[in-house]
Amino acid sequence: MIEAFVLVVVKPGTEEKVYNALAKEEKIKEIYRVYGEYDVIIRVEVENIHELDRFHDETLRKISNIEMTETLIASSYRG
Amino acid sequence: MIEAFVLVVVKPGTEEKVYNALAKEEKIKEIYRVYGEYDVIIRVEVENIHELDRFHDETLRKISNIEMTETLIASSYRG
Amino acid sequence: MIEAFVLVVVKPGTEEKVYNALAKEEKIKEIYRVYGEYDVIIRVEVENIHELDRFHDETLRKISNIEMTETLIASSYRG
Amino acid sequence: MIEAFVLVVVKPGTEEKVYNALAKEEKIKEIYRVYGEYDVIIRVEVENIHELDRFHDETLRKISNIEMTETLIASSYRG
Amino acid sequence: MIEAFVLVVVKPGTEEKVYNALAKEEKIKEIYRVYGEYDVIIRVEVENIHELDRFHDETLRKISNIEMTETLIASSYRG
Amino acid sequence: MIEAFVLVVVKPGTEEKVYNALAKEEKIKEIYRVYGEYDVIIRVEVENIHELDRFHDETLRKISNIEMTETLIASSYRG
Amino acid sequence: MIEAFVLVVVKPGTEEKVYNALAKEEKIKEIYRVYGEYDVIIRVEVENIHELDRFHDETLRKISNIEMTETLIASSYRG
Amino acid sequence: MIEAFVLVVVKPGTEEKVYNALAKEEKIKEIYRVYGEYDVIIRVEVENIHELDRFHDETLRKISNIEMTETLIASSYRG
Repeated sequence: MIEAFVLVVVKPGTEEKVYNALAKEEKIKEIYRVYGEYDVIIRVEVENIHELDRFHDETLRKISNIEMTETLIASSYRG
Repeated sequence: MIEAFVLVVVKPGTEEKVYNALAKEEKIKEIYRVYGEYDVIIRVEVENIHELDRFHDETLRKISNIEMTETLIASSYRG
Repeated sequence: MIEAFVLVVVKPGTEEKVYNALAKEEKIKEIYRVYGEYDVIIRVEVENIHELDRFHDETLRKISNIEMTETLIASSYRG
Repeated sequence: MIEAFVLVVVKPGTEEKVYNALAKEEKIKEIYRVYGEYDVIIRVEVENIHELDRFHDETLRKISNIEMTETLIASSYRG
Repeated sequence: MIEAFVLVVVKPGTEEKVYNALAKEEKIKEIYRVYGEYDVIIRVEVENIHELDRFHDETLRKISNIEMTETLIASSYRG
Repeated sequence: MIEAFVLVVVKPGTEEKVYNALAKEEKIKEIYRVYGEYDVIIRVEVENIHELDRFHDETLRKISNIEMTETLIASSYRG
Repeated sequence: MIEAFVLVVVKPGTEEKVYNALAKEEKIKEIYRVYGEYDVIIRVEVENIHELDRFHDETLRKISNIEMTETLIASSYRG
Repeated sequence: MIEAFVLVVVKPGTEEKVYNALAKEEKIKEIYRVYGEYDVIIRVEVENIHELDRFHDETLRKISNIEMTETLIASSYRG
């Protein structure tokens, strides 16, 4: 299994809309609306890197007003 | 109360227009047109972080030609 | 209470060391070693913004090899 | 007269120290400790661009732990 | 001959589409879909810098959904 | 008099078009098409900062396909 | 197997030195000295993400004058 | 012949020193001290890309306090 963070920049003024749209997606384990260089942070869990491809090509593609995403794949975790 | 700076990048050539539109907003305490990586700097005062959300979702959303905003929340101030 | 993410860049080659040092800190709720523009992502919970100041001035200061941090304060969360 | 903002990045953990050192400088009209891509924002007023040069070469040079500065010169202001 | 890498950022959700469109171009020697600050990396070989101009003005121009490219010209290579 | 550089990013594939359109403007003293994080570099000479404002609001506004500009005001020069 | 690109920024003036040091490493399949936002691009092949961790913690750690690395993990390839 | 711009970031407070040191170099045709994301802009003319390598490895290496350089190779010019 792969854990990844997606740092999301949205069209200014659509932060709440995008946050709500993303919150309905099952692959997304956590979602935060944040202030700074990025607007939304999501944490996803996928089986492998090809499912991560599909998450971008299918899930994120449907959501309007996302201007940029930057995906960080995690190699270790402690919580 | 929260003080925050919003660093704004606009569509090239619309700097004056966006500056004038923002200057009419009450929540904005100060506004500067600047040269460099950003085009406009605004300082806002809001009651709490949810009012900062509303400032983005309602006030900034109405202003055309804003391409990117980056919000820096202040923890201390001396002037 | 404030939730924040700290995106961390470390001196190349010290990723594991910094990750292990951060993992011992109590204020840090989750910590991920990641690949991309940043090397480590941490999620912290603090009482208010002044405790966030202290987290930087005291906790992060003790950890060697951190080159840059960028802190994103969250306004909403769903998990 | 020139008004300028200096966005400052400091060595992680020295935010409070740098903020306090800068707060003593006369040319600095306002100073904020902030969260995000930058750590401190200062607003300066200088007579002309050569005094801005001196502000960097003399005033900022004395302050330890500043890692990066980015100066934005303002052309208009409303407050 | 000039070897260059083009780091490509695409409209979110169109990664696979752009990757497939680029893969058909003859000047492109290698193409990778990647995760991080960029979405696709391509390696091109051209005769000289004016052919590199034409690669951008003609080849890349035809491909929809490319939002940003950053071209790095190589001076040495070992493989 | 103020000398300034404007670093320009254009819509991918329109580099030559934007370069040719800018080359016709009188305020622009030099113009280079370049490879890297930016696509075009221009050097302008203006009387004062308000004429620099007008250069952006009037001259750059007319040129299609400019996606971002970053203006660096010079304080000293040797050539 | 994982393929990844590592974009490397070095201390100015040490480009050739770092390039030569990296060229001796077996995990590195290709290495380019480049001009732009980054100075060296390397392509590595590793068995899994924990070997990628070790590549950073052991191989890159030994090389002096590397200031920053940004690793992009590839999901697809055509050459 | 290759024309290139080198965008230079220096250690804060050493802008004048670095500017003066660079101004003595023969390969540098023009040099500007600037305000914004970069501190100094230089324009160089070299015979070919290997001479550009040597310019970095020999000329820039001798100059203290340069923290980062980003080199943009020009393909066309009008002045």
